[in-house]
Amino acid sequence: MTKRQGRLHLNAFLMSVGHHEAAWRLPSADPFANTDIAYFQNLARIAERGKLDSLFLADSPVLWGEIGRRPSGALEPTLLLTALATATSHIGLIATASTSYNEPYNLARRFASLDHISGGRAGWNIVTTAGADAARNFNLDDLPAHRHRYERAAEFVDVSIKLWDSWDDEAPIGDKDAGVWGDTDKIYPAAHRGEFFQVAGALNVPRPPQGHPLLVQAGSSEDGKDLAARYAEAVFTAHQTLDDARAFYTDLKERTRQAGRDPEGIKILPGIVPAIGSTEAEALALEEELDRLINPEYARKQLATLLDVDPEDLPLDRQLPDDLPDEDAVEGAKSRYTLVVNLARREKLTVRRLIGRLGGGRGHRTFAGTPEQVADAIEHWWQSGAADGFNIMPPVLPSGLEVFVDQVVPILQRRGLFRTEYEGTTLRDHYGLTRPANRNPQLAAL
Amino acid sequence: MTKRQGRLHLNAFLMSVGHHEAAWRLPSADPFANTDIAYFQNLARIAERGKLDSLFLADSPVLWGEIGRRPSGALEPTLLLTALATATSHIGLIATASTSYNEPYNLARRFASLDHISGGRAGWNIVTTAGADAARNFNLDDLPAHRHRYERAAEFVDVSIKLWDSWDDEAPIGDKDAGVWGDTDKIYPAAHRGEFFQVAGALNVPRPPQGHPLLVQAGSSEDGKDLAARYAEAVFTAHQTLDDARAFYTDLKERTRQAGRDPEGIKILPGIVPAIGSTEAEALALEEELDRLINPEYARKQLATLLDVDPEDLPLDRQLPDDLPDEDAVEGAKSRYTLVVNLARREKLTVRRLIGRLGGGRGHRTFAGTPEQVADAIEHWWQSGAADGFNIMPPVLPSGLEVFVDQVVPILQRRGLFRTEYEGTTLRDHYGLTRPANRNPQLAAL
Repeated sequence: MTKRQGRLHLNAFLMSVGHHEAAWRLPSADPFANTDIAYFQNLARIAERGKLDSLFLADSPVLWGEIGRRPSGALEPTLLLTALATATSHIGLIATASTSYNEPYNLARRFASLDHISGGRAGWNIVTTAGADAARNFNLDDLPAHRHRYERAAEFVDVSIKLWDSWDDEAPIGDKDAGVWGDTDKIYPAAHRGEFFQVAGALNVPRPPQGHPLLVQAGSSEDGKDLAARYAEAVFTAHQTLDDARAFYTDLKERTRQAGRDPEGIKILPGIVPAIGSTEAEALALEEELDRLINPEYARKQLATLLDVDPEDLPLDRQLPDDLPDEDAVEGAKSRYTLVVNLARREKLTVRRLIGRLGGGRGHRTFAGTPEQVADAIEHWWQSGAADGFNIMPPVLPSGLEVFVDQVVPILQRRGLFRTEYEGTTLRDHYGLTRPANRNPQLAAL
Repeated sequence: MTKRQGRLHLNAFLMSVGHHEAAWRLPSADPFANTDIAYFQNLARIAERGKLDSLFLADSPVLWGEIGRRPSGALEPTLLLTALATATSHIGLIATASTSYNEPYNLARRFASLDHISGGRAGWNIVTTAGADAARNFNLDDLPAHRHRYERAAEFVDVSIKLWDSWDDEAPIGDKDAGVWGDTDKIYPAAHRGEFFQVAGALNVPRPPQGHPLLVQAGSSEDGKDLAARYAEAVFTAHQTLDDARAFYTDLKERTRQAGRDPEGIKILPGIVPAIGSTEAEALALEEELDRLINPEYARKQLATLLDVDPEDLPLDRQLPDDLPDEDAVEGAKSRYTLVVNLARREKLTVRRLIGRLGGGRGHRTFAGTPEQVADAIEHWWQSGAADGFNIMPPVLPSGLEVFVDQVVPILQRRGLFRTEYEGTTLRDHYGLTRPANRNPQLAAL
């Protein structure tokens, strides 16, 4: 095999005290870090010290029923990232926001504002939000159908692009002598009338420094992959095996080509949950300590919700029942459902062991090893055409991010696989993506 | 008259390069300050140096048709204030947000997040948003009726309070040994089913440090005053004369009493646009220089829109026509309409002179004088029972805020009218307002 040229990309997926659900119970953890802005600013500075491409925050507009078990509640991501923007200078800032429970004018404006505030470092992880609980916080009785949510999402992104492009880059003039601040001929109202939205005017923020904030997508259902192929510039995904990851990578690059886009314009980043130790035994001991701290009864309830079965139907020391529904019948997070069922079946896991695996990475690939072994694992998938980079999900924070940045990143740098300094200033620069031209139809007609 | 006891309150109303619409044309102005976060952080630090109670940002989700004439576009206020929170430690942070074009779950969460991020310094200026242009950015063909907007606003605030109160202050526990992070019995889902909103769940952010962010209101129509009497803890208002201000003050305190609240629990802050010079002549010269820089044709169009007449019907050197509509027939910003018409009639202003007055303060009281004269004007209204404090609207920024903080504030401090140090840490502390108890009905039933 020819050695792959170029460099890989690294994103830090932040989650209060870590991705392992029991991380907050470790002696060193601050259980209330989830609302502590200084704590998150410290995480952001650590990631920037490692020259990582970006930070990422997941989100859903609902209080998950887990307050008994783990830190609950989260600062709203566009505000939290604004606070992180003021504490950093280069690292990209990606926030999750729902197309089902926002209005395009408001959300496009917030991302444009974040892009201005951060000097071109904003990214939007576009989600349609699974779960009836979230729908019930927004005047609905139940979750809209999967297909309906994705159709709304596509139109939402179309409107957002029209709004970001509603100012020409040259619209602001600032001619004091003439008393003319802006060129009114270079403002292009959205004039959108679609199935889900009517948006008449121009955005009330100038075009963002990046043109459009980076568009990110993380759903891996058929609808999700199609949405990604049309719009996404980076994709977060979850795979347990190299074969699955490579199949996904090949499929999504091909869909992107078929959507008329350059496959280089979409960067695919599988998640990895690295438990790092100075020896492999030390790394495994950390993983075991964490798994021991999981409360199995709570976790079983959560698994039962995902699988849409009764918790009683999931005895802890048996494998999953045979008669689970098909992915097609699931209206929630389809791709996650399939991933969990396949993981359990492939490795013949009991419910108890499945819970341990999910508690560590929620379906993402967990990996315990030395810094060298983690670097090898990353390089192997990247060299094998399964990834353009990785979504780093430390099981314990801040320590897991510190050890990744201080011990794994230098190995990747020595191997020439990762930057040693930021070469640009925007999130698009870091991912090697161009600034989009203004797609306003009035311009195209010229 | 007995001398009034206590201290007055001061809010800095920030508006890029100043409240005078021609301020951006001064040689010292940065015409692109409206999207410059470092510029706003500097303003915030100046205001905090003056120990002011709070900062305030106006907003509307629409691009006003003024891009030709003056700096247009604004960073979204809750994000901008988040960035200012990280640059300051004490000053309160008040953002305008619309109840007509947001969902309670999202907006309550953003204000709760800002309150957590700032350590209890968030305030929400509740507006219903006038103007058909804004409606057309949110799937509507025209502005909802005034009364309808205010009914929705009241329900919106009710839902927001339910959401902030959906976590008991004692809900987070963080018991690592027991593996119990929070007390599920201390989470109270909103369970709201009203005319405008259905919101089932609890908020996904713990109760804010202030209990509720400070609730602020600025509409002075009948509906607006009733909303303020029910909910507001601070009110921004615009009056040209002491008599008008005193009548408003007395009326609103009485309405607040009738709504079953302590009138001390609502602080009334009229706006003042102070042009400050080391002599009165210097102050007047600044005011004249600014008025000369206004483009009268643009301003006439804006006035015509407010009055709902054709610009041709407003000859620059005549007074307003006699046959203008009644306030009751106006669906937009009713109180502003009446204020402008009354100002023009009372002072028999030509359209040209009216435009100069509005360009300086948009209906707020303009005042040119020395620091001593400005301090006298402030003390006089406060002593006369027309105000609990003032909304300071410098015609030119940052210079107008600097001179206010460095030259007017020390005079007020010497007179014992204003604090010399912050005595508390939250916005409520600064205004002398208590932290609200949790009003959750489940608690009331105990």
